[in-house]
Amino acid sequence: MKPIQDSHLYQEIHQQPALIRNLIDHPQDNINALAEEVRTRGIKHVFIAARGTSDNAGRYAKYLLGAHNQMDVSLATPSLFTIYGRPPYLEGSLVLGISQSGKSPDIVSVLTEGRRQGALTAAITNIPDSDLGHAADIVLDLQAGPEISLAATKTYTAQLTTLALLSTALNPNPQHTEDLAAFPGHLKDIFAIEDHVARLAERYRYMTHCVMIGRGYNYATAFEFSLKVKELTYTIAEPYSSADFLHGPVALVDQGFPVFVLAPSGKMVGEMVALIKTVQQRAAEVVVISDEQEPLTLADQQLQLPAGIPEWLSPISAIIPGQLFGMYLAHTRGFDVDQPRGLNKVTKTW
Amino acid sequence: MKPIQDSHLYQEIHQQPALIRNLIDHPQDNINALAEEVRTRGIKHVFIAARGTSDNAGRYAKYLLGAHNQMDVSLATPSLFTIYGRPPYLEGSLVLGISQSGKSPDIVSVLTEGRRQGALTAAITNIPDSDLGHAADIVLDLQAGPEISLAATKTYTAQLTTLALLSTALNPNPQHTEDLAAFPGHLKDIFAIEDHVARLAERYRYMTHCVMIGRGYNYATAFEFSLKVKELTYTIAEPYSSADFLHGPVALVDQGFPVFVLAPSGKMVGEMVALIKTVQQRAAEVVVISDEQEPLTLADQQLQLPAGIPEWLSPISAIIPGQLFGMYLAHTRGFDVDQPRGLNKVTKTW
Repeated sequence: MKPIQDSHLYQEIHQQPALIRNLIDHPQDNINALAEEVRTRGIKHVFIAARGTSDNAGRYAKYLLGAHNQMDVSLATPSLFTIYGRPPYLEGSLVLGISQSGKSPDIVSVLTEGRRQGALTAAITNIPDSDLGHAADIVLDLQAGPEISLAATKTYTAQLTTLALLSTALNPNPQHTEDLAAFPGHLKDIFAIEDHVARLAERYRYMTHCVMIGRGYNYATAFEFSLKVKELTYTIAEPYSSADFLHGPVALVDQGFPVFVLAPSGKMVGEMVALIKTVQQRAAEVVVISDEQEPLTLADQQLQLPAGIPEWLSPISAIIPGQLFGMYLAHTRGFDVDQPRGLNKVTKTW
Repeated sequence: MKPIQDSHLYQEIHQQPALIRNLIDHPQDNINALAEEVRTRGIKHVFIAARGTSDNAGRYAKYLLGAHNQMDVSLATPSLFTIYGRPPYLEGSLVLGISQSGKSPDIVSVLTEGRRQGALTAAITNIPDSDLGHAADIVLDLQAGPEISLAATKTYTAQLTTLALLSTALNPNPQHTEDLAAFPGHLKDIFAIEDHVARLAERYRYMTHCVMIGRGYNYATAFEFSLKVKELTYTIAEPYSSADFLHGPVALVDQGFPVFVLAPSGKMVGEMVALIKTVQQRAAEVVVISDEQEPLTLADQQLQLPAGIPEWLSPISAIIPGQLFGMYLAHTRGFDVDQPRGLNKVTKTW
């Protein structure tokens, strides 16, 4: 087996701090252009179309644009457009497509319909010269360079960063601007835990299933972490909000059941601590990703995040240990991390 | 172990045809009152707050109110209201809470905020005299009688039926009215497969994990079927749309991997047939719930639905074999079907 360092996945994961810094330090003009158009039209509602990893960026947008911009965000159900031919009213909304490749026909069709109805349309994509890019009034370029590994990593954090920049451009706030400017500096030590993750992955060599739990901003991180583990390691990994988990699925938990908890510092820590205590009463195995002492101390296994990152930006950094975990778990199992079985880089769905 | 027929779950599952008939044959005045108010205010956007089984009714509403009423439906993220204290703009929307008990504080807080912002508020609940009922301008009563089994069944199909009646009251259409009137008649043979389900459950006695796949109207059914299997049998069961499944998680499928496919007749059958063929190339074990020959013929195991039910109403009937399967699988494993471990009838989350 070739060294993990030679894989595209390893390299793309490690490119993230520099790519994120570039997006923040040199923001593209189109972000301000889109924000200006949204303000001019008085848009309060965003309709997002995305699949897979990009849909998880949409989940982040639902919290971020809600909490910072008071916008209501709907996640599109593309089959209403493509299969039923009965799209909802979109007039007066921002219709936003998010796609690494810009090629999935169902996502493109949502933007095409949005434009037909007179809505403002925008795309966040790594390939501006794509069907999705052409269907949008304004294109935000992820500028992540070619992503060759089938599991998306750097385009995901670039999508989140772009959304954070867009949110701040929509409602400028000195604290948020300062948070963004400081963020790349906090990432310099993000790979300090890498050797620890590589060893920890061995413990889960024979894990067949697990759940990932996050809520609020890091609900998206729970989804994206579980998707990486599914794609790369073929482990059954189901994401939940802590609240949804308690409304039924908590029944699954018994002795040794692996529960991965996303608990970056901020308003959700108390909720995550309560969840950890609940599943520990049932003898779960708890892995915590956090920069806070309380959840880390409770954990059976710790994945420590850099300190000083505000909650609203934490999904961009908190997914990185998850990406590393997925990669090392796949490697420990002898799988090719760049070519998971059954996946294509461009998935066309209708 | 007591006979399954003596369980509340068995009885509540079997009460469904009569309860659904009652809701359709004697529609409550509040459905028309709510529809009239939505029309008067020119409301095009619905904001739904729900958890667990009720959230799956919200998923049905997203397709139904989209396809039949061109309304855009957002599913609420309650933590924006309760934990972050940063709710989105709701003015001009219908804010709809769905809850069997009407007691979950996070769902109530979404309606309270909707009312504060001047939005129209409504509740769909089995307990009109509840916090949720009191927070709503208009209450739609599920009239399902007490639900004692911890796993919700009859309140779910009553929620879907109420949503179908509301959708039809919003945009009256002779075909839909006729479909609704004929629907209870199609349910008379719904339990004809019960002995078959009870035998089939034995085949899955040692199943540790599975996926449930539906799309469009029956995306909700995939979610609710998987929730029943999780709650009642402690099996890892993850729901997907066929399109989302192909964007990554299909990598999970190998020899004998159990895939439950919801394929009632209608516009989604072609998509489900293609999905079945894809996973069969990877030697999956495919169980199909359908009334259509093509998907049933492809299946390893068949769960046949009554014929003649239009796609938009099919989620109400297609979940019943799923409820039966969950119950018999739990019974085969020696579990108490009325008292799954770790669940309470009223789950209070904030």
